[in-house]
Amino acid sequence: MAQAINLNADLGESFGAWRMGSDAELLPIIATASIACGFHAGDPLVMRRTLRQALAVGISIGAHPSYPDLQGFGRRVMRLPADELEALLIYQIGALAGMAQAEGARLTHVKPHGALSNMACEEAAIAASVVAAIRCFDPRLILLAPALSQLALAGAAAGLRVASEIFADRTYDDSGNLLPRSQAGAQLHAAADCVAHVLRMLDAGGIVSIGGRCMPSEVHSICVHGDGAQAVAVATAVRSALLAAGMRLLPLPQVLPPADSIAPAAMV
Amino acid sequence: MAQAINLNADLGESFGAWRMGSDAELLPIIATASIACGFHAGDPLVMRRTLRQALAVGISIGAHPSYPDLQGFGRRVMRLPADELEALLIYQIGALAGMAQAEGARLTHVKPHGALSNMACEEAAIAASVVAAIRCFDPRLILLAPALSQLALAGAAAGLRVASEIFADRTYDDSGNLLPRSQAGAQLHAAADCVAHVLRMLDAGGIVSIGGRCMPSEVHSICVHGDGAQAVAVATAVRSALLAAGMRLLPLPQVLPPADSIAPAAMV
Amino acid sequence: MAQAINLNADLGESFGAWRMGSDAELLPIIATASIACGFHAGDPLVMRRTLRQALAVGISIGAHPSYPDLQGFGRRVMRLPADELEALLIYQIGALAGMAQAEGARLTHVKPHGALSNMACEEAAIAASVVAAIRCFDPRLILLAPALSQLALAGAAAGLRVASEIFADRTYDDSGNLLPRSQAGAQLHAAADCVAHVLRMLDAGGIVSIGGRCMPSEVHSICVHGDGAQAVAVATAVRSALLAAGMRLLPLPQVLPPADSIAPAAMV
Amino acid sequence: MAQAINLNADLGESFGAWRMGSDAELLPIIATASIACGFHAGDPLVMRRTLRQALAVGISIGAHPSYPDLQGFGRRVMRLPADELEALLIYQIGALAGMAQAEGARLTHVKPHGALSNMACEEAAIAASVVAAIRCFDPRLILLAPALSQLALAGAAAGLRVASEIFADRTYDDSGNLLPRSQAGAQLHAAADCVAHVLRMLDAGGIVSIGGRCMPSEVHSICVHGDGAQAVAVATAVRSALLAAGMRLLPLPQVLPPADSIAPAAMV
Repeated sequence: MAQAINLNADLGESFGAWRMGSDAELLPIIATASIACGFHAGDPLVMRRTLRQALAVGISIGAHPSYPDLQGFGRRVMRLPADELEALLIYQIGALAGMAQAEGARLTHVKPHGALSNMACEEAAIAASVVAAIRCFDPRLILLAPALSQLALAGAAAGLRVASEIFADRTYDDSGNLLPRSQAGAQLHAAADCVAHVLRMLDAGGIVSIGGRCMPSEVHSICVHGDGAQAVAVATAVRSALLAAGMRLLPLPQVLPPADSIAPAAMV
Repeated sequence: MAQAINLNADLGESFGAWRMGSDAELLPIIATASIACGFHAGDPLVMRRTLRQALAVGISIGAHPSYPDLQGFGRRVMRLPADELEALLIYQIGALAGMAQAEGARLTHVKPHGALSNMACEEAAIAASVVAAIRCFDPRLILLAPALSQLALAGAAAGLRVASEIFADRTYDDSGNLLPRSQAGAQLHAAADCVAHVLRMLDAGGIVSIGGRCMPSEVHSICVHGDGAQAVAVATAVRSALLAAGMRLLPLPQVLPPADSIAPAAMV
Repeated sequence: MAQAINLNADLGESFGAWRMGSDAELLPIIATASIACGFHAGDPLVMRRTLRQALAVGISIGAHPSYPDLQGFGRRVMRLPADELEALLIYQIGALAGMAQAEGARLTHVKPHGALSNMACEEAAIAASVVAAIRCFDPRLILLAPALSQLALAGAAAGLRVASEIFADRTYDDSGNLLPRSQAGAQLHAAADCVAHVLRMLDAGGIVSIGGRCMPSEVHSICVHGDGAQAVAVATAVRSALLAAGMRLLPLPQVLPPADSIAPAAMV
Repeated sequence: MAQAINLNADLGESFGAWRMGSDAELLPIIATASIACGFHAGDPLVMRRTLRQALAVGISIGAHPSYPDLQGFGRRVMRLPADELEALLIYQIGALAGMAQAEGARLTHVKPHGALSNMACEEAAIAASVVAAIRCFDPRLILLAPALSQLALAGAAAGLRVASEIFADRTYDDSGNLLPRSQAGAQLHAAADCVAHVLRMLDAGGIVSIGGRCMPSEVHSICVHGDGAQAVAVATAVRSALLAAGMRLLPLPQVLPPADSIAPAAMV
């Protein structure tokens, strides 16, 4: 049977009068959307519209929470006490889950944004706060995290379902970390380069660094970005290449093993 | 059998380093807490702590959403389009509901705050947005609203369970509206005056205006305020007077008729 | 001698990662920029960059303050006490003036934004707060206000230098007010229509309503907008038409009579 | 002639409906106020009221800028690019300077707040941004900085007038840094202990660590805190002790050598 794979993008990153991203064009291409929760982008109206658009095309949806930093788009390092970080994550996940509930739908995953994601990928204490917030909100939620990151490890260790993602347009160093955006070669812009990058990693069965080092990892999802001039072209090309390679594009829950035995804390 | 009555207060109105209210002292006195949701007060950590404190004493909890106005404490008139108002109400209710879920608990009511409440009590269009937000989030939630207000009417007309409240420390005009705070006599400060005011209205079976006019209304709950030098003394005195009058103080859901037939939209 | 006229636009309305407007294209076309001050748009970095760009092309600069409403882009009605409104206007003007001082430059005008402007144009009390804020900050600042508005009248009555503006892309009713954006015909999109609209009013020596009524008024400045697909085309066409009509485009201070006798409060 | 010394406190740290500090009681005790600028505390109305109160008692005033972090009261580490930090410092200083100008007054110093201050005291790059912001806004402004800090050094190296402060209620380690608040013995609470701490350092002519090490430094100002139960008692006791020791309490500019040759950039 054909290999199942997921294609995800971050959506709903407009705010008030300001537009960002090509959500409408991306929605028919991807299989899963991570939706901003108001702390780095996405006011309540943007959140609701994005949710409805995602539900209309039948893709799976999740929360994309962030540090509280509209001006810095959640990309600035902040240091919060663990209890405060956990509380603001539950707040954001709850807000989006409430909007989903209002549409008769459910979130199926959480994916941290920006500096929060970067820091949770490298620092075990921050990863632990993210995992704790998800677990106490709803342990059935999938953690969508960069392959081989501290965050992915922490989620798995805590019994969360973890989906490992690789990035179509970002390159890796020999430790499996993303090259910082400030570094030359960190970002791929041409659709053909992104496709080759993705296929190389899927073939190799893990992350392949810019120096050619292969680090084995499960790969459940490919992340494409929603902003930038090439976003739609890259997403389209990656999707076509995956399909051409005989893979099936599925919503996030369907590319992971089922988790029958997990129940929310409230039900235990 | 003794008459059941509820006693409610608005809690969790601290923010960051700033304290407000006498939450710890009020919690053992009241039967229901409306908890600020971050838009006029109450950051995520304050929300979580308040929720836990309320659950620890076993009272019922609800959301206290507001216009987005930290600086004005939600007391400034704002004009938002209906879709935006509805979205930000679902956002706030969802955020607090998510925190409750993380504690294995559930919200049982919603009570709008400040200018939003005042405007929803007088303008049918705003009342309709509040009611729509509650209904699509969870139609089993109780709307806690001032007795005889447009908001209470709109909730009942839409099939929500509505709890009518009167204020222990605020006086009414002959139309049943609260006197504006800026007007002389609008606020009662002495505990004895508040007690007399409450008992007079319970005896009369409705609102009694400052001019002595009686306007019949169901009264399910008495609201006491959490801030101000007299807050705890007033709450204590009102509670004692209600008990002395032979009434039973119960959480909000237990002073209303049951609502077996109401199911959330997501389940229909 | 050729008639002097000013051409102004609102700039610096990006925020953080979000872009808005065609500032770079507009700067060589206009003679005066009103720069957002952080309350509806324009974080400190955007403000500083916009200031530097404006100074580089040698146009006059002013503050474009707003209600505190990033999410609503300052377009939502808010009701603030007069002392609070005055304080937040001084805050915003001071912040931008400080940035100008850091570049060795000076603001020469203030132009309120969005709902604040609309309300100050119709309500004398709000106009009075705007005028009071400008006067106590620096009475030498020019108030740039819609022709024939309450705001323009209040400024003149208080002894401020007032520059009257008309809008190239907005139409007027028979009272001299702008048609609300929600109304058909309120906005002109084609550059040729904007040019005809402006020339008609300059010829008539005042506002000409959509119904053809002429209301005499001084006109010191033409406002073009910076956002929208046609913004640059409209601004370019209006500029060309003004020059073709033999007018001279000058910075705002140079289209008004001098005001030698006005001294700042601090110097009195 | 008696030694001149300054006594300073941070004021205006209320926000909206939330009160903080004992400003009214401290104003007659201190000689200099650093006023919050809206980013960690102090909305425009609080700023204006605080300014007026300070001017009414005739003390010198300065800006107390912060990272943009209301919820964290400016005490959370944030990492901002240098150009962004510089811009938001100019914004805040300008906003308060504008309010002072509206009262016919002038700021005479800048003192960073919270995490920004701590980080500028330890990291040369952040100190450089603070110094650059002050210099380009107005090089005549005094930098009020902890004695022996990187920030004080950077200010002096750049030609700013620097006032060195010591803390009445905080203890130091053997490197001259404040003990972190989380550490035992970091804070002194009893007024007598604060007085002894201050007099010991003034006698020794520099910082005296908790271990008894003396690090020579100029000391121009003593900082007392405005919040906490003992704030007013500590400030009163320190003031009395300084006067009893024969010192003269003066506004900040008068405890430093004059700086006739410094001109603002705008005038060069």
